[in-house]
Amino acid sequence: MGQTSLILRLEMDHSVCTFGEVATAITGAGGDITSIDVIRPGRETSVRDVTVDAGDQGEKPFVEALQGVRGLKIVNVSDRTFLAHLGGKITIRPTMPIKNRDDLSRVYTPGVARVCQAIHEDPKKAFSLTVKRNTVAVISDGTAVLGLGDIGPFAAAPVMEGKAMLFKQLAGVDAFPICLDTKDTEEIIRTIKTISPIFGGINLEDISSPRCFEIERRLSEELSIPIFHDDQHGTAVVVIAGLLNALKVVGKRIEQVRVVVNGIGAAGVSICKMLLDAGVQRLVPVDREGAIVRGGSYAHHPMWNWLAQQPQVQAEPGTLKEVIGGADVFIGVSRGGVLGADDVRRMAERSIVFAMANPNPEIAPEEALPHVAVFATGRSDYPNQINNVLVFPGLFRGALDCRAKRISEPMKLAAARAIASVVTENELNDQYIIPSIFNDHVVPKVRHAIIETAILTGLAGRIPPDFR
Amino acid sequence: MGQTSLILRLEMDHSVCTFGEVATAITGAGGDITSIDVIRPGRETSVRDVTVDAGDQGEKPFVEALQGVRGLKIVNVSDRTFLAHLGGKITIRPTMPIKNRDDLSRVYTPGVARVCQAIHEDPKKAFSLTVKRNTVAVISDGTAVLGLGDIGPFAAAPVMEGKAMLFKQLAGVDAFPICLDTKDTEEIIRTIKTISPIFGGINLEDISSPRCFEIERRLSEELSIPIFHDDQHGTAVVVIAGLLNALKVVGKRIEQVRVVVNGIGAAGVSICKMLLDAGVQRLVPVDREGAIVRGGSYAHHPMWNWLAQQPQVQAEPGTLKEVIGGADVFIGVSRGGVLGADDVRRMAERSIVFAMANPNPEIAPEEALPHVAVFATGRSDYPNQINNVLVFPGLFRGALDCRAKRISEPMKLAAARAIASVVTENELNDQYIIPSIFNDHVVPKVRHAIIETAILTGLAGRIPPDFR
Repeated sequence: MGQTSLILRLEMDHSVCTFGEVATAITGAGGDITSIDVIRPGRETSVRDVTVDAGDQGEKPFVEALQGVRGLKIVNVSDRTFLAHLGGKITIRPTMPIKNRDDLSRVYTPGVARVCQAIHEDPKKAFSLTVKRNTVAVISDGTAVLGLGDIGPFAAAPVMEGKAMLFKQLAGVDAFPICLDTKDTEEIIRTIKTISPIFGGINLEDISSPRCFEIERRLSEELSIPIFHDDQHGTAVVVIAGLLNALKVVGKRIEQVRVVVNGIGAAGVSICKMLLDAGVQRLVPVDREGAIVRGGSYAHHPMWNWLAQQPQVQAEPGTLKEVIGGADVFIGVSRGGVLGADDVRRMAERSIVFAMANPNPEIAPEEALPHVAVFATGRSDYPNQINNVLVFPGLFRGALDCRAKRISEPMKLAAARAIASVVTENELNDQYIIPSIFNDHVVPKVRHAIIETAILTGLAGRIPPDFR
Repeated sequence: MGQTSLILRLEMDHSVCTFGEVATAITGAGGDITSIDVIRPGRETSVRDVTVDAGDQGEKPFVEALQGVRGLKIVNVSDRTFLAHLGGKITIRPTMPIKNRDDLSRVYTPGVARVCQAIHEDPKKAFSLTVKRNTVAVISDGTAVLGLGDIGPFAAAPVMEGKAMLFKQLAGVDAFPICLDTKDTEEIIRTIKTISPIFGGINLEDISSPRCFEIERRLSEELSIPIFHDDQHGTAVVVIAGLLNALKVVGKRIEQVRVVVNGIGAAGVSICKMLLDAGVQRLVPVDREGAIVRGGSYAHHPMWNWLAQQPQVQAEPGTLKEVIGGADVFIGVSRGGVLGADDVRRMAERSIVFAMANPNPEIAPEEALPHVAVFATGRSDYPNQINNVLVFPGLFRGALDCRAKRISEPMKLAAARAIASVVTENELNDQYIIPSIFNDHVVPKVRHAIIETAILTGLAGRIPPDFR
C-alpha cells in the first residue's frame, strides 16, 4: 500500500565513481530506478536527480547503500508524495483578472453593492450571483480518517484537499476543505449550519460512527442544500452498483439472494438500507456480537434497532461464521481476515464476496477466489475496486445543477444504477463489474440520474437547460 | 457611484430601421455607446450587442426609448456588473492534474496516509503540507456591508468574493469567503475557532461595532494565527500612511498637530490608537454626543473609556463644530455632510482633511478644497483615495510568509510607513499623498515591513528565505 517514490539528488565525482556503481547500490537496496534527470552536467563532477520506486521502504536503506559508494555525495532526498503536498493541493483563483479601476468597480466597490442589494432582496439569487452555485464544502472532524482513525483536523486536511481535487477534475465542482476543531455533535451541527450560506452542498467526510448519523440527519432536516456523508452513502452506492452487475454475472435476482453484511457502522448501515431499497428480501446484518436479528433490542444503537424492525432482516441469531453458510452474497466493511477459505466455501453456489476492509480485506483474494464467482475489494491492485470516487463527483454535479434540496434514497439508488449501467452487457464479466474512476461516462451518467430523480420526486429547485 | 454598464442585444429589421435611429434613441435616453459587436449579420435582419455606459440609470429608460423604434426587437438586456458575478467570482483548482492511478495514489489514498501521519505526529507540518500555508478566510456576518448595513450572510458574499479576488491577484494569497449565519458574538468566535485548522490567517470583514472589537480580541488571544479586522485596521493603516505624507506636504510634525477624529466606531477607534502609536500628542475623538474627553466616563463604550484614560486625549468638551476650530487635522469616518466650508475655514493654517464617509464624504471636495492644504476621501473619483486594498494583500502576504502568530500594533505602523514610502520625495504633493492600489511597489513593501517587524518583535514563526 505505502508505495514510496523517492527522488535522490546525487553529486558524482567521475574520477572516483561511475553511474553503474550508483545503480547497483540502489538496486541492491531493493529500489527500482524509474527516471534520471541531469541537473548539472560537468566533466569532473555532475549532479543528477534519480527517481526510485522504493516499494514499501523509506529512504533509509538507499541512503545507507549510497553512503558506501566512494566519490558520491547525497545532496538531497525527496519523497514524491510529500513533494506533491508542499503548499497544499488546491488553489483559489479569480474567475477574471482585475486589470484596471473599471474592472475593480464592477467586482468590488462600488459596483458590487448593486449585486449585494439584489441578493438581499431575493436570497435565492445567491445561487446564481455567488460561488454558492458551484461550491461544496468537504467537512471532517478528523475522527475516522482512512485506516488511521482519530488523527484530528490538521492531519485530516490532506485527504479533504485530495477530495477537493477530484471534485474539480472529475466533475468541475469547486470544493473547499473545512477541518473542524471539535468532536462534539451539537457543535459540529451548529458550526456547519453557521458557515453554510456560501456553500451549495456539504460533503461530510471521515466523521466517526455513531455521531455521523445524527449530524447528517439533523443537517439534512435543518438546511435546504444537499448533505451527503460520503463514508456512509458513497460506499453504499458503489456497493449496490457492483452488486447489481455481480448478480447479472451469476444469474441471480436481487429478491432471491440472502445477503450477509458484516460491520454495521457508518457504511454498513447505509449499505443495509440501500439493499432493502434495492429489493433484497433476506438480509443478515452482522457486527462483533453476531447477527442483528429481527425483533432484537440493541441499547445505544438506534440504527441497529431500526434494522431489527425491518421484515427482511432474518430472525435467526448466529456468529458471522455461522450465518455465512449458504449465503449468496457477503459484503464486508469490517476488518481484515475475519473470513477464511472454509467460510466462503460454505456459501451458496456462485457466491459474491465484496471484502472492503482497509487496508487488508476480510479475506485475501488468493484464499477467496477459488470458491467464489465474483470477488471485489476496496483496493486498486485487484479487479473490481469498490471506490467512492465513482459517486461523489457526479452526485454533487447533478445536485448542484438542479439545486436539489437534499439527497434522497431514490437519488442514491438511481446513482447506483447509473454506475452499474456504464458497464455494458458485452463488457460485463466476473473481473469487470464496476467501471474505472477514470471512465468518462461515469460522471455524466450519475449526474443525469440524480437530476432526473430529483425532478421526478419534487426535490429539484431548478430544471437544468439540458432537461427542459 | 452606481455606474451601470448595459449590454443590449438588439435585432434590427433593415427594411424598417437603421442603426442611426438606434444610436439616437440610446443617446437621447442619456446613454453613451462604448462598443458594438455583430452577433448575427444578415441582409434582412441582424443581431448586435450594444454596450452602453448608462451612468447612474438602470435599463428602464433605454428599453422605453428603444421600444419606440419601429422594426427593432430587444432580444435581451444584460448588466455587465451582474454578468461579472454570474456563478461567483472565484474558482478552486487542483495544483496538479490527476492523470492516472499513480497520480491518484500520491495525492489521495493510499499515499496521502503517510502525509496525514506526518502531520498527526507534528501538527506544525500543516503549514507546509496543506493549504494552510497560503490560505486566508475572509469572514463576515453581513452586518455592516459597505454602506448597505445589515444585509445578512447571503448578500455579503459578493463583497467577500471580490476581496478574495484581490488577495490572489495582488498578493498571490488564496482566500476563501465564509459568510456566517449568526450575529451572536460568542457563536461567531466559537465558529471561527472551530473552522480555523485549515486557514493560515483570518480576515474579518464588515462585522458591526461594538461586537467586532470583542470578536477580534478574543480570536487573537485564543488562536495562534493572524486575525485582522480590515474595517478597523485596514482603514487605520492607510489613514496613517496618508497622514504621514500629508504632514510632509504641509511641513508639520506629528507631535505638533492637534487631530480631530470624527466617528468613534470600528475604524475610528483603530485610527485613534494608531495615531497615538504614531506619536500624536493632542487627540480629540468625537462622536455624535461630542468630544470624548480625558477623564470622562462612557457607559457601554469600553473603547471610549480606554480613550478617556489616554494622556494625549484632550480634556475640553465640545461639539464637532466647536472642537474643529484651530485643529490641524480632521479625520472623518462618520457620515456625509457633517462639516461645512465655514468649519474647515476655522481650522489651523495648512490644514489636512480626510473625509472618508461612504458614499458621501463629511464635506464635499468642492467646498473644502479652497480652505485646506491636503484633502483625501475614500472615493476613487478624487485624488488621494484612502483605500484598504493598499493594506490587506501585502499584510497577509507577509504574515503568511513568516507564519506570524498575530498582527501587532508595531506591524500595522510598519505597514503604514511602508505604504507612505512608496510615494517618493520627488513625487509627493498635495494631490498625491497615497499610491494607487495598482502600484506594483505597494505589496512587496508592505510584506517586507510586516516580516521585518514580526522577526524583530519575536512574532515570526519562520524566517523566510529572503530574510536569512
